[in-house]
Amino acid sequence: MQGSLEGDTVHVPAPSRERFYDNRGYGHPRGNALALSPVEAAHLLYRGDLEMVDEMGFRSFLATTDTLVRFLVYKDLRDRGFYLSPAREGWIGSDEASGADFVVYPRGNGPWDGAVEYRIRVVGERETVSAASLDGTLAVVDEESEITYLSVERPDVTGTTDHDLPQNVPGMLLADRVMLWDPPAALYEKAFYGQPLEASSAGSSSPSPIHCSLVETAHLSERGIVRVDAGLEGIIERGRAVEGERFDRRRAVYSALRDGGAVPKTGYKFGADFRTYANVDSVDDLGHSEQLVRVLPQDHSFSPRDLALDVRLAHGVRKRMVFALTDATGEIDWRSVSRLTP
Amino acid sequence: MQGSLEGDTVHVPAPSRERFYDNRGYGHPRGNALALSPVEAAHLLYRGDLEMVDEMGFRSFLATTDTLVRFLVYKDLRDRGFYLSPAREGWIGSDEASGADFVVYPRGNGPWDGAVEYRIRVVGERETVSAASLDGTLAVVDEESEITYLSVERPDVTGTTDHDLPQNVPGMLLADRVMLWDPPAALYEKAFYGQPLEASSAGSSSPSPIHCSLVETAHLSERGIVRVDAGLEGIIERGRAVEGERFDRRRAVYSALRDGGAVPKTGYKFGADFRTYANVDSVDDLGHSEQLVRVLPQDHSFSPRDLALDVRLAHGVRKRMVFALTDATGEIDWRSVSRLTP
Repeated sequence: MQGSLEGDTVHVPAPSRERFYDNRGYGHPRGNALALSPVEAAHLLYRGDLEMVDEMGFRSFLATTDTLVRFLVYKDLRDRGFYLSPAREGWIGSDEASGADFVVYPRGNGPWDGAVEYRIRVVGERETVSAASLDGTLAVVDEESEITYLSVERPDVTGTTDHDLPQNVPGMLLADRVMLWDPPAALYEKAFYGQPLEASSAGSSSPSPIHCSLVETAHLSERGIVRVDAGLEGIIERGRAVEGERFDRRRAVYSALRDGGAVPKTGYKFGADFRTYANVDSVDDLGHSEQLVRVLPQDHSFSPRDLALDVRLAHGVRKRMVFALTDATGEIDWRSVSRLTP
Repeated sequence: MQGSLEGDTVHVPAPSRERFYDNRGYGHPRGNALALSPVEAAHLLYRGDLEMVDEMGFRSFLATTDTLVRFLVYKDLRDRGFYLSPAREGWIGSDEASGADFVVYPRGNGPWDGAVEYRIRVVGERETVSAASLDGTLAVVDEESEITYLSVERPDVTGTTDHDLPQNVPGMLLADRVMLWDPPAALYEKAFYGQPLEASSAGSSSPSPIHCSLVETAHLSERGIVRVDAGLEGIIERGRAVEGERFDRRRAVYSALRDGGAVPKTGYKFGADFRTYANVDSVDDLGHSEQLVRVLPQDHSFSPRDLALDVRLAHGVRKRMVFALTDATGEIDWRSVSRLTP
């Protein structure tokens, strides 16, 4: 059976609909004939179900239509037992079409059923992904043509941590951190603010001095819990001096997490901005931190490799990788990204 | 006992040498008196061994001399049972002094012995580390004042992989990768070049087509093993078109690794340029890849957080993190970085 290329569609004359569409979920019906996307045609050529498209076999068709990368993803999903359709307006619902390359149906379903399992966007390793477009499922094809599927969700980042804290604890601003020389025990031991100067103050009558980061101090001073001579403005000024406007973004995310009942601590050892604990009653029975949070501007563009690095690391330490996308307004878009095996 | 600040040195009058230097390795002798660096003086003030320096107690001395970050590292190493000296010319050998903040002596040794265990450079989380200066041991102090020690080495990146391969295998350049439709089996199955289109060609008479990355193809075509119509120049041109001059750096590192008997494959899933296998006899009994390689320009500046991310990920997957620093000349400086517990 032969097809002919009409613009970006391959037409296969009747009777082709039953064999390819009804039985195997390829293309879009035209009466008893069939319209195929180039990727679908390439797959049928590859399998030998189509002999030629305009005298082209599989290899020359691939070269002419430049469909290799999407072909690899289409083939991989077919090999995994899925039916899928190119995300073309008119072939599928326009909601599913927007921003996607393919819609994948639940195993056993096809284009004639309503349900959609994955909305797949194909990305080459070297392309970038704008933060705003981070959605659905990314199929990243690396330079050696291995495929990684990344699933994007809107995570719940709230927790249940809640402690009453005294007001007006004096702090001393030292370079890019703040010393609390005589902190109330609850500040560190219950609410997990700061870091003690002495590893363990166990047994000692008065708690060890603690040092707080500027972002912790800004949060505490804004709520009247810590008082620094320079005031909140002085802390913010110092923060901007040492890390620029990034400080405002990190401060907004830090406070959003704390106000939501989660405890953010530095994620430095994981190369992130924060690690977070959802439920902190006391530092003595601290659980495992559940999330890594990276703070990024709303207009950030991800390199797929950086995404892979973050997601792989988070997976390796059994945490959820969360991106907090924010800007000057302090509004925050939360996204979590994780590996997916279709 | 009291000291007085003279420029960047704290003078403690005689008799102080025996008590602080001879017995506990602080400072630099001046006859029976003693010269201390501000960090050493801060530590003695903190411990109550010095009462005052120019009427200042510990807290105001810290504030005045802005030594908190280095104090935290000095204290941590003292707490771990080491004696250490500030890396000052005249106090220690000038070789040890250059580029370091402290020299740490083996446990049980002190400044009066010759041996040096670690040359420590203190870096705040927000400072950057130039690639050229990546050496010795970094003590990175994060924003919550936790300390991570990173050890820098010159790794051996060679291997024992060696296979005879046929010449003139035809390849088809498709966008940013190359298809070898009828490859000799040895190319993938022995030498581990490229990626088969079919997961397993086991049992099948002829091997599956394989796709190669541009950097693999450039290496193979330069050695006459693969032939593409566009020629080596065409491959390089395409490589620069899709990733700019980074392609030349990655190509230089790829070939240096291959020529040294190691097999580089994409490190994409680990967020690196390459993962490497030292000894590949056959893909069927492939071992664990031992290294992750990130290719960077000679003049790159590391953010400690990015270093932490790479080192943590590599550690998590039991690989060595290697940085290949290179430039237009193709000359390569190899550095490996790993966590260290003093």
